Amino acid sequence: MFDSSTLFSNAFSGLKGNIIRELYKYTSQPSFISFAGGNPSPETFPNEELAEIAFKVLKENSVACLQYGVSNGILPLREYIAEQMTAEGVPTEVENVVITSGSQQSMDLLSRAVLNPGDRVLVESPTYVAALKIFSIYGARVEAVASDDEGLIPEALQEKLEEGPVKLLYLIPNFQNPTGITLPWERRKQIMEIVKNHNVLVIEDDPYGKLRYSGEPVPHMKTLDTEGQIAYFGSFSKIIAPGLRVAYVVCQEAIAQKLVLGKQNNDMHTPNLTQFIVNEFCRRGRLAPHIEDCCCVYKKKRDTMLSLLNEHFPKEIYWTKPDGGLFLWSKLPEGYSSMKLLEYAIPAKVAYVPGDSFFADESGVNTMRLNFSNASEADMEKGLRLLGEQIGRYLQVKK
Amino acid sequence: MFDSSTLFSNAFSGLKGNIIRELYKYTSQPSFISFAGGNPSPETFPNEELAEIAFKVLKENSVACLQYGVSNGILPLREYIAEQMTAEGVPTEVENVVITSGSQQSMDLLSRAVLNPGDRVLVESPTYVAALKIFSIYGARVEAVASDDEGLIPEALQEKLEEGPVKLLYLIPNFQNPTGITLPWERRKQIMEIVKNHNVLVIEDDPYGKLRYSGEPVPHMKTLDTEGQIAYFGSFSKIIAPGLRVAYVVCQEAIAQKLVLGKQNNDMHTPNLTQFIVNEFCRRGRLAPHIEDCCCVYKKKRDTMLSLLNEHFPKEIYWTKPDGGLFLWSKLPEGYSSMKLLEYAIPAKVAYVPGDSFFADESGVNTMRLNFSNASEADMEKGLRLLGEQIGRYLQVKK
Repeated sequence: MFDSSTLFSNAFSGLKGNIIRELYKYTSQPSFISFAGGNPSPETFPNEELAEIAFKVLKENSVACLQYGVSNGILPLREYIAEQMTAEGVPTEVENVVITSGSQQSMDLLSRAVLNPGDRVLVESPTYVAALKIFSIYGARVEAVASDDEGLIPEALQEKLEEGPVKLLYLIPNFQNPTGITLPWERRKQIMEIVKNHNVLVIEDDPYGKLRYSGEPVPHMKTLDTEGQIAYFGSFSKIIAPGLRVAYVVCQEAIAQKLVLGKQNNDMHTPNLTQFIVNEFCRRGRLAPHIEDCCCVYKKKRDTMLSLLNEHFPKEIYWTKPDGGLFLWSKLPEGYSSMKLLEYAIPAKVAYVPGDSFFADESGVNTMRLNFSNASEADMEKGLRLLGEQIGRYLQVKK
Repeated sequence: MFDSSTLFSNAFSGLKGNIIRELYKYTSQPSFISFAGGNPSPETFPNEELAEIAFKVLKENSVACLQYGVSNGILPLREYIAEQMTAEGVPTEVENVVITSGSQQSMDLLSRAVLNPGDRVLVESPTYVAALKIFSIYGARVEAVASDDEGLIPEALQEKLEEGPVKLLYLIPNFQNPTGITLPWERRKQIMEIVKNHNVLVIEDDPYGKLRYSGEPVPHMKTLDTEGQIAYFGSFSKIIAPGLRVAYVVCQEAIAQKLVLGKQNNDMHTPNLTQFIVNEFCRRGRLAPHIEDCCCVYKKKRDTMLSLLNEHFPKEIYWTKPDGGLFLWSKLPEGYSSMKLLEYAIPAKVAYVPGDSFFADESGVNTMRLNFSNASEADMEKGLRLLGEQIGRYLQVKK
């Protein structure tokens, strides 16, 4: 009489894995060259030092590492983050900081704290695929705000906000995923002026902000936040190591308290050990020089990819030239499909992410995301040559 | 125009911390003696070995520890768990195992995968306080099934199931939290016979099962599960260290896949480092002897508490004599309130958990949970003497 197929909740009965996970069955094959994932380069991981630090914190602080901890995170790490954010122009107390197990969890906890089914959520177009998934699990109506080569268009946001109540606005202002675009300072100011007049919470998701390889840094949107209207998401995944799963939210205390209640009822707390490891690494003053090293590695990879794209991609293809982050964004001519192109690319053992899944609506059929952080230089050379050839074939066949 | 007080979801606007967290402001004071928390004893933590193991796995397997991992958990640990469960009479493949960041997360992920608002969930009476919280966040109607000194009463379950569809039945068969009671084998069989005729998923939550100090082990309920009707929750929190946050679910593959989707959209994956640490500790054959050491420590603590209760508690007071776990359950005479008793206990600097929060209904006003794993022998002696005196005062005043 037990039938598991009838068991699942409305949100979960139709839920599927995302395209990046689905591509994994190809991209995990050894001879495959993938520009699909978003993994940081393992050559940037400070392996030796983290091994030594793990040993040290477990020896010197064993009970604090191994006993149950508090749901908002270990105090020294929250203090460090508060100091950093304050130094970056966002006055922050420890009560404003909640440690999470990765920014994915920041997004999930914030969503469950604020979203009721049917609530409107506004996103850039395109935007981070997992954010779309999470908002939809909570039953939100996700709407794309028109965006251009400089990111979200303030006037388009204004229009959307005037159509009726909006619960959340989700933004990735620096080196956006998937486009690599950075929202200029002028637009950040315009957007903050607009949202001030509306009862909407803004997520400033910033996993890549410190990975800048050219151009001038733009201050956080939250430096303009006089109303406590922004929840800022920071993360150590891309600047230390993602496998540690340590990230944080900086927001007003009333919201922080709800996130902590959500965390109590989700995973109780982020493992103390991984928090102490991150804290020790930062407290040694290792973060800033380490980020410089990462930027050096990634700048080279970005430049290599841009020059290989020039060399190997047909002239009809567009791509962005990001100042930082891990991704660039490319477009086939209108009328072509990047999903169809996979049928050429996969037999040639090269992959990217078709861009349509990054859109809240039906657009983006001709777009694709290319990651430049993970492949070696040799793989990048070979992979982009192969992909360029297959694009050429596809454009030829379709013509 | 931004007003965070209007922001929160229906589930979160009224959500409060649980009583154990609220008592923390007292129990965290240095001179306070607390029987309230559920912390394992830090003297059981294998500090030195875990420090050495953390160093080793990070040195030898650094990229796997630090890069993004798979959402269902690292393969060697899933294999280990599958072998163990198979050896314990539950034939298990790796596809049936999902690693989680603590059993709290197992509960949360399973709840979100199956619960729609209004679904009925049956629990023991009393039951784990955080489970009540999680089910209610997902909008479930939680109903208590009558339970006695041997745990859930099968006939009462039968009645509840016949009243209409039930989505979940939540059980802690071994050394239950909060009562310390173990469900006898005969009842396990009866319950499985009953649920077979209904489309209900059973959670067998077993965080304490391996911590047995007397009596004979009772096989898992899941050994009787021919229909894939049980999701078994195991955890390393009480037998290695809770701060590592490593636990697991064993269940049929269709359910495991939904849990993995939930995890992808929650925290992506449990940190690889903590998984590799647990795996290495287990693979060295250290788990079984370590559990023996823990049982030796806890048996002594349980026996001490039982003998001190005999010595210091008034004769009107009832308490359970658990064969394992971390808790025992006590009752004041009918008509007395353990919440009221706190007004005597807290000024005397001793605490326990008032039992009413462990009930899905309004019962349990005269009950309390006492933890015996955490206090030192000296604190236990002093704390139970103080508590016994205050109970005496309270009984006297009320008389």
